Amino acid sequence: MSKPLDGIKVLDLTRVLAGPYCTMILSDLGAEIIKVEIPSGGDDSRAFGPFINSRSLYFLSINRAKKSVSLNLKTSKGKEILRELVKRCDILVENYRPGTMEKLGLGYNDLVKINPRLIYAASTGFGHTGPDSLKPAYDILAQARGGIMSITGYPEAAPTRVGMSLGDITASLFTAIGINAALYQREKTGLGQKIDVSMLDSQVAILENALVRYQSDGESPQPLGNRHPTIAPFQAYKASDKYFVIAVGNDNLWKSFCTAIGNPELFDDLSFRTNRLRTDNIGTLNSILEPAFAAKTAAEWLQIMEKAGIPCAPINDIEAVMNDPQVLSRNMIVEVEDSMAGTVNIAGNPIKMTNVPESSMRDKVPEIGEHNSEIYNGWLGFSEAELVELKAQEVI
Amino acid sequence: MSKPLDGIKVLDLTRVLAGPYCTMILSDLGAEIIKVEIPSGGDDSRAFGPFINSRSLYFLSINRAKKSVSLNLKTSKGKEILRELVKRCDILVENYRPGTMEKLGLGYNDLVKINPRLIYAASTGFGHTGPDSLKPAYDILAQARGGIMSITGYPEAAPTRVGMSLGDITASLFTAIGINAALYQREKTGLGQKIDVSMLDSQVAILENALVRYQSDGESPQPLGNRHPTIAPFQAYKASDKYFVIAVGNDNLWKSFCTAIGNPELFDDLSFRTNRLRTDNIGTLNSILEPAFAAKTAAEWLQIMEKAGIPCAPINDIEAVMNDPQVLSRNMIVEVEDSMAGTVNIAGNPIKMTNVPESSMRDKVPEIGEHNSEIYNGWLGFSEAELVELKAQEVI
Repeated sequence: MSKPLDGIKVLDLTRVLAGPYCTMILSDLGAEIIKVEIPSGGDDSRAFGPFINSRSLYFLSINRAKKSVSLNLKTSKGKEILRELVKRCDILVENYRPGTMEKLGLGYNDLVKINPRLIYAASTGFGHTGPDSLKPAYDILAQARGGIMSITGYPEAAPTRVGMSLGDITASLFTAIGINAALYQREKTGLGQKIDVSMLDSQVAILENALVRYQSDGESPQPLGNRHPTIAPFQAYKASDKYFVIAVGNDNLWKSFCTAIGNPELFDDLSFRTNRLRTDNIGTLNSILEPAFAAKTAAEWLQIMEKAGIPCAPINDIEAVMNDPQVLSRNMIVEVEDSMAGTVNIAGNPIKMTNVPESSMRDKVPEIGEHNSEIYNGWLGFSEAELVELKAQEVI
Repeated sequence: MSKPLDGIKVLDLTRVLAGPYCTMILSDLGAEIIKVEIPSGGDDSRAFGPFINSRSLYFLSINRAKKSVSLNLKTSKGKEILRELVKRCDILVENYRPGTMEKLGLGYNDLVKINPRLIYAASTGFGHTGPDSLKPAYDILAQARGGIMSITGYPEAAPTRVGMSLGDITASLFTAIGINAALYQREKTGLGQKIDVSMLDSQVAILENALVRYQSDGESPQPLGNRHPTIAPFQAYKASDKYFVIAVGNDNLWKSFCTAIGNPELFDDLSFRTNRLRTDNIGTLNSILEPAFAAKTAAEWLQIMEKAGIPCAPINDIEAVMNDPQVLSRNMIVEVEDSMAGTVNIAGNPIKMTNVPESSMRDKVPEIGEHNSEIYNGWLGFSEAELVELKAQEVI
């Protein structure tokens, strides 16, 4: 059994999060990832916390199972080596600021001449076109400018950032979709193409019904805390001990729900009979539900709701997530054995495919230039003496 | 110029959000989407608000440019018709509860026999395996159980849901990656495969450094409001009028930042010299920065920061997003002309690819069964008289 991307070689010029996360996905699908790092320091995120024994776990969690070569792209020899690698790779992924690769003479238009089959993916903050293309970017800027911060959290509170780097991750995912689609198309045409995905565009793309809610009444949607904008009751409620969530997603569930909370006559109240009415009258509804839920623990309510077939869930903290039986049964927590940090648990691959065998292990994270011999010698034919000289010249 | 997925036919048995969003992406990449809807009512989300002239904009925003056929899969004739469609399609996407397709005799193992090239993608709440596979699921349950709600918001506040359906959307994106990878592999092997993506798995996969932060100190990460967990200063600050965000992502920017805020001597304070120190001492640092920022408006600070090269951004509401020059220049707001709702603006495609031409328009949303003649007559050879009879029998 071969994995979907077995045999595909990826030249990975990315750093920090959006790019490395994308190439990690390609790795899980079977591709070979050659991470190109600056000889001094490598990927910036090697210096990002948290650390165990000086190993950045931030770096570890998304760079496992990649190969690393060191290469200084500011030297002419370094550029020459990169071009040789490009000739031998299927995909190049980079997340430099727009124009950086062009200044190096390594832009898409340069590289496509030496490898017309190359799929060149650029992951940036604002994209390779447009008035703000060159602005520096980070996740929080994409979350702020892209609208998600304006609809997350509570109206009276300070703005809320989504608790993970949503700008980076969604750009990664859209980039990975484009790369795989381009691989498919290359089988038909024999040609690669350029893919240009930005964090800002990706944030806009996932706003889904917020854009049309604005158009329905001319008001920018406001943050809703933990409520759903158009379905009710569909939110977190506080039990006697802690919060839990329920999702009464349709009118049939509403009837079962009323019985489950021991208030079947609530179903007879016509002001709550349809989802639209429950959404419109959520304040009144919650003034009935909140005192009711305060009478039992979250665990008790979850048991009651489950028996009644009402969709519900605990609000898991990270420890609970990492011990959740369903999460574990799906192999979503896997291990990396690291020379410095020891055994570290990281997230598994959520794309379960017939041709992607499950494994509870991931290969280790590379040191900077760990695979110089394998790639520079094996692929390009440099001798060990030449590698020593390239190192002395600070090319690798 | 052909789009990457031109010629690919997708049988779309999905409803509500995760599935339809996935097939929308495939549509933007060139695939033909045949949406299979129950004759009475169709996709549940046709009844979800907001509405303009009884058109669900929720439905419209993610089902544009698809074709709809009506089909009752509970009838034997309906199943027979579905099997005929499966023989003619490349991809089937469904988001029924696990086991539903099998009960209908239309599970992957049934369908692969009549079309070994079929790529079958199932998008579910908890996946097709595991102890909680059959539990009902909605976005908020995945957000709650998957950990993101435990790290989003403010520690003292009630739990915060990410303001869009992150569980659904991330499952969509991972499913779309799997489908495209499977299409590529099918070119090599001639065979399709099954893809099984869950919302819960997808939420775990995007937690990125939260999992390793837990392992570094044994404490589940807490919500951080709008701060970054390991980079500082990297958050929203309140100017004299409203909030804005800055992202001082490295030590070089820190020096420029100190000068930009008119406090160059802050750089001399060794307790803030490295990112790690600034993260550790964020409370002290903010007690210096917050009063400073209160002295000017957000617009003034953004201008100052931009001049100094400090990454920064306004916190856009949805109206501002839809009028952002960069967003507009990237064609991220496109139009649908709808027979009921008129012109509606929705999000464009964030995957900018050389072979995907940009257009500011999207084709319209289908009525239930609008393409019955085109598909049932054109693909399967049913006569108009037969279609009338199938309709009378409530098969279509």
